[in-house]
Amino acid sequence: MDSGESDRTLAEVGEFGMIGRITRARPESAGVAVGPGDDAAVVWAADGRVAVSTDMLVEGRHFRLDWSTPHDVGRKAVAQNAADIEAMGATATAFVVGFGAPADTPAAQVDALADGMWSEAARFGAAIVGGDLVASPHWVVSVTVLGDLAGRAPVLRSGAQPGSRIAVTGQLGYSAAGYALWHSGIDRFSEFRQRHLVPQPPYGQGRAAAEAGAQAMIDVSDGLVADLRHVAEASGVGIDVSTEALDADCRLLLGAAQAVGVDALTWVLGGGEDHALVAAFPGPLPAGWREIGHVVDGPGRVLVDGAEWRGYAGWQSFGTPGDGSLG
Amino acid sequence: MDSGESDRTLAEVGEFGMIGRITRARPESAGVAVGPGDDAAVVWAADGRVAVSTDMLVEGRHFRLDWSTPHDVGRKAVAQNAADIEAMGATATAFVVGFGAPADTPAAQVDALADGMWSEAARFGAAIVGGDLVASPHWVVSVTVLGDLAGRAPVLRSGAQPGSRIAVTGQLGYSAAGYALWHSGIDRFSEFRQRHLVPQPPYGQGRAAAEAGAQAMIDVSDGLVADLRHVAEASGVGIDVSTEALDADCRLLLGAAQAVGVDALTWVLGGGEDHALVAAFPGPLPAGWREIGHVVDGPGRVLVDGAEWRGYAGWQSFGTPGDGSLG
Repeated sequence: MDSGESDRTLAEVGEFGMIGRITRARPESAGVAVGPGDDAAVVWAADGRVAVSTDMLVEGRHFRLDWSTPHDVGRKAVAQNAADIEAMGATATAFVVGFGAPADTPAAQVDALADGMWSEAARFGAAIVGGDLVASPHWVVSVTVLGDLAGRAPVLRSGAQPGSRIAVTGQLGYSAAGYALWHSGIDRFSEFRQRHLVPQPPYGQGRAAAEAGAQAMIDVSDGLVADLRHVAEASGVGIDVSTEALDADCRLLLGAAQAVGVDALTWVLGGGEDHALVAAFPGPLPAGWREIGHVVDGPGRVLVDGAEWRGYAGWQSFGTPGDGSLG
Repeated sequence: MDSGESDRTLAEVGEFGMIGRITRARPESAGVAVGPGDDAAVVWAADGRVAVSTDMLVEGRHFRLDWSTPHDVGRKAVAQNAADIEAMGATATAFVVGFGAPADTPAAQVDALADGMWSEAARFGAAIVGGDLVASPHWVVSVTVLGDLAGRAPVLRSGAQPGSRIAVTGQLGYSAAGYALWHSGIDRFSEFRQRHLVPQPPYGQGRAAAEAGAQAMIDVSDGLVADLRHVAEASGVGIDVSTEALDADCRLLLGAAQAVGVDALTWVLGGGEDHALVAAFPGPLPAGWREIGHVVDGPGRVLVDGAEWRGYAGWQSFGTPGDGSLG
């Protein structure tokens, strides 16, 4: 029985048919020597090095298909991987994608997922160069990103020095606010709810930070305090965050925080998945960055206004319910 | 309640604790500038290009934990990705791994999975440079491999020319035989059963083929006829396979084929997952390759002894039960 093109399933279209559909008529990228369709892609790496990172998103854990459209899921998967590359001071150039889904998944949803990936990647001139499409009881999206350092040294987590300024670019707490709003069934504050579904990392700022001499950098995927702790421990330094410097961030969230009944500072300090960038600078900050603290002597730990932070610190996989994770 | 180190679960060890365990004390690799532990790894790419490919393995679909040990699964995931790089005429240098598993998974199983990946990668001098560890209702292993072309042109599927010889290196039908033996509960012929769990691609032969002037190449992941069809269609040529040339391959499988009650040729022509390499050569074959047919004029199709092959051709995801797929 043949159904219309618009409501065919993955099983009806088939693996190779589906791959043909989602790779057809995509824009060419100057960074790609061999695109999808062979045993491997070949990507230019004029720098002589390539940065590489991977993230896996599991339905019910990292996204919910009753909250997110497939297009949102595609954008999120690309955005959060690109943010890891930004956090090295590099620029994302190419992605490969593993996608698992049930055989009865509408092919149109797979089209939308791929379109979301391409549209997010197009924001910084990157391409999807390959992938794997398999049967799975639930959706799994595994994205690997390649990045270009353009001759610069990678900005690691381990280089922060006492006396440097800690600065951030991008939003803090938007995703956590959005998650709480979705969870509470509050349909106002659409910007936060949308940011929970599709983070918007500050593309280009990783490179700007590297060019400005950033000593250490990370993207805020687990939460500001949790991610700064990674930097503090890797660098063997203390990082002291000023809540006064985060007032403006808190004010942006105030209405939503009151609607949900929480302290906005909890979202700013503990909320992950916005993929803001936070870095240590020994000198002047690049445009678009705001100072939120400074580096002090070790041991490796994070202080808030000079004291240990005892609130919610951030996400870990395999966490227990109530830790802010989905499902 | 604290249980012994040996029977702790992923939830008890935690994401970061587990990542620490599986990345500790691994061998250094000359190809890696920045290893695991930062936002991204950095891999050397002196060639100025990098080959990249990805595969996703889903429990119950691509492996069964009642047949395979976690160590087997790790080796298989790395081997099949490395084979894709071999099929470009390149050498695998580095891997990143996404792994999803239930929170109650024994941490020792994750250790074994990682050990399997490292031991397989060590066979060709590559390293695991990064990954992501997440909660998932069942095991999902997503591996991305980077490869080095060392200045050579990539060997694509599209370059086969009429008159060239088709040759293969590596085993044909071992994995299919093993699958049938497992499925039938026959515990003899352990070599085939083990090859189904852990394929052994002919590492180094991809590069040897490229250096010998291979015009087109692919690894046998879906089945010999199915994969040659990809080459035939991409190249716009016919490929004529000789069953007489495959006699030796069939003889190796004869005992197992009789035990299961099938024609060994079905496994040789249709069985995938051995990750043998098959290529078109205009001139002499490199050492270790055996001729199995030749390239004829188009249209793009595969012939067996000059006639269309009507038997089982190979694997596709989302296939129906009975197509040789698991689950």
